[in-house]
Amino acid sequence: MTDFNLNALASATRTAWKTLKRSSHAQRNAVLAAIADTLIARSAAIATANADDLATSAAAGLDSAMLDRLRLDAPRISALADDVRALIDLPDPLAVCFDQRVLANGLMRHRRRVPIGVLGVIYESRPNVSIDVAALAIKSGNAAVLRGGKESLRSNLALVACVHDVLRAAGLPADCISLIPSSDRRHVLELLTLDASVDLIIPRGGAALHAFCREHARMPVITGGIGICHLYIDEHADLARVVPVIGNAKVQRPTVCNALDTVLVQRSVAAQVVPDIVRTLAAAGVFFRVDPEAFALLAGVIAETDLRARFTAAGPEDFDTEWLSLVLGIKIVGDLDDAIAHIDAHSSGHSDGILTDDRERARDFLERVDSAAVYWNASTRFTDGGQLGLGAEVAVSTQRIHARGPMGLEELTSYKWVIEGAYHTRR
Amino acid sequence: MTDFNLNALASATRTAWKTLKRSSHAQRNAVLAAIADTLIARSAAIATANADDLATSAAAGLDSAMLDRLRLDAPRISALADDVRALIDLPDPLAVCFDQRVLANGLMRHRRRVPIGVLGVIYESRPNVSIDVAALAIKSGNAAVLRGGKESLRSNLALVACVHDVLRAAGLPADCISLIPSSDRRHVLELLTLDASVDLIIPRGGAALHAFCREHARMPVITGGIGICHLYIDEHADLARVVPVIGNAKVQRPTVCNALDTVLVQRSVAAQVVPDIVRTLAAAGVFFRVDPEAFALLAGVIAETDLRARFTAAGPEDFDTEWLSLVLGIKIVGDLDDAIAHIDAHSSGHSDGILTDDRERARDFLERVDSAAVYWNASTRFTDGGQLGLGAEVAVSTQRIHARGPMGLEELTSYKWVIEGAYHTRR
Repeated sequence: MTDFNLNALASATRTAWKTLKRSSHAQRNAVLAAIADTLIARSAAIATANADDLATSAAAGLDSAMLDRLRLDAPRISALADDVRALIDLPDPLAVCFDQRVLANGLMRHRRRVPIGVLGVIYESRPNVSIDVAALAIKSGNAAVLRGGKESLRSNLALVACVHDVLRAAGLPADCISLIPSSDRRHVLELLTLDASVDLIIPRGGAALHAFCREHARMPVITGGIGICHLYIDEHADLARVVPVIGNAKVQRPTVCNALDTVLVQRSVAAQVVPDIVRTLAAAGVFFRVDPEAFALLAGVIAETDLRARFTAAGPEDFDTEWLSLVLGIKIVGDLDDAIAHIDAHSSGHSDGILTDDRERARDFLERVDSAAVYWNASTRFTDGGQLGLGAEVAVSTQRIHARGPMGLEELTSYKWVIEGAYHTRR
Repeated sequence: MTDFNLNALASATRTAWKTLKRSSHAQRNAVLAAIADTLIARSAAIATANADDLATSAAAGLDSAMLDRLRLDAPRISALADDVRALIDLPDPLAVCFDQRVLANGLMRHRRRVPIGVLGVIYESRPNVSIDVAALAIKSGNAAVLRGGKESLRSNLALVACVHDVLRAAGLPADCISLIPSSDRRHVLELLTLDASVDLIIPRGGAALHAFCREHARMPVITGGIGICHLYIDEHADLARVVPVIGNAKVQRPTVCNALDTVLVQRSVAAQVVPDIVRTLAAAGVFFRVDPEAFALLAGVIAETDLRARFTAAGPEDFDTEWLSLVLGIKIVGDLDDAIAHIDAHSSGHSDGILTDDRERARDFLERVDSAAVYWNASTRFTDGGQLGLGAEVAVSTQRIHARGPMGLEELTSYKWVIEGAYHTRR
């Protein structure tokens, strides 16, 4: 595709957005319903395109976990269509006015939500992201330039063709949702320079992709998705209820960013609770990286032959690692201040919590720990747009501008000031 | 200052911020009061430092307008102290919780405002910006790295010394507010790469500075301050009340970004209103760039000898120019659609308005024009944090992420999610 012109594609997307942003909520919802129907109607064709991607990727030596992420079969296409339909009942994120006030001079002002504009979304192997993002963008009146992984190009083309056909049938420009039809990595770099057409970059991938976007983008970037998450067990926690929370945070889905990485335990209760934690979690397949004090404390447990292989002395980088697997760091600390100091030094600012029945200490922790999500007596696994009641999620942000934590539809909007007067002049 | 280390300075600012963000609102207000007092107490010394800057700049050939911007005499220092004191009575921007909800599973969540972190503020000749920004940052719990113009370095050092002494006396780290003590332009470029220490860049200057920051910054940039502003006179406007609004928007302070650049007039009323506009504004010293149709319409007025020199046929770039002076573009359009099309093509998205008594057309304009501020029957000069009731202003944003239009104290905050449970686990 040597004659492909990304600048022209992004510019066409911006032009198309100007039509999309004037559409009604009912019109945008009708598009979502039609996309869901079309996905189902073309399920076999999409699966065939995906089978081509899978065959190419298998031949190229992609591992089975990657192949599984890439796979799009009939049940997954059906689930994808359901996700699109679930957006229809959510309220219109653009039908919001706020901060209304009549000023002393009689001028009336309020702020009204508007779409951000054109989103640039860069993602990796999972082709369903193409539809997730397209549906969220359309619901919120945004256009999008999509750049999926090269291994899923044929799947993405088949999926975006559904969106294009639906948009055209609805009298809206197909260019509202554009897919970069190329696997050339230079296009990612070029996309990051097109600030005349693209308002916001949302990378969905690993730390290297996020750093690359921050370095090269001329427009704002939503950085996120990296979670080195902590739970601190205070001495006033209900120790009988602590173990299931730690287990849930670590084991329920270890490959995601809100899974637990390090448990901090107050020294005064460590001997009571740490052996229970490691026995329970070891049974679930967890391996441990433990600081010297925890190692000493666990000598008895470690001596149980079948558990010995699960323990490693924590190395200097272990508390700065996002495990994304069945590995848990354990560290003994003196008190709340020590726990907060450790979190301050090692957390990625994603999700950190305290387990305690002491309200004052909980308040102190929630006040002082400045992560995107701070928890009192709950698993870190709730940092998710769906779980926190946003109805949908486009990304989890760990940067501090615009949106922080789970980003739902509202976080895909900007606002404008509306000022109404009676031929007012400024003094 | 060859041994000056900007990375170390920014890093020290971030460390200092961690203390500042734990301070109480009363403590931060006490710092503001003491800064105001100290400015007054040291007024003579500050004016002396400023006189040195003025002498150097005058010798270097700075023009009188620039020298006036640079000047900091006793009355201006007194006004600066008053501006700092005015922040004290504003509510604490951090004492805000929002979006509180109890979820179906009993989990309670809300969002709580927190400071953004470390602001990097890059500005030009006016030294009072150093105090304005320091005071807004401290009020909102943010730290700041300041980079003023080289011509105001001695003034800025004297002003920031006041802030440092007050912070130290209050038991807070002086490094909360850091001034880059160098006029080397390479430090601006380096500042833009320090995303580990600086969360947000706020450039306060011309279009070239904004473009430079967007290109090189690894962190988000608040772009703004460029206003190509329009007012559209609809045929249903109260024509007797239109002229003062146009005059106010153009003449009251022509050098600022919210001043009017182009007036669009509906053809059906152009002959009735345009001659009045040009006679009134010409008397105030305005020059005009007019499209061919307006030129023909104004033939009679232009024939009046003393006005002829004030009219120029609009060239191809005139409607894409921010005048920042007593120049006004005039264009005749057919209807609302034409007016909106012109604004869409030429506005910088800052402030645009309609003058009409037709409610439907006003609604249509306010809905369709997507600028940071849209007006109905008011001068564009109200796009200002103070005028719109924000109490203070750090910048006017014309980008679409985080904050748009006037940015007050709330726009200097981020938020965190606070989630409280009863040992909740995710299913």
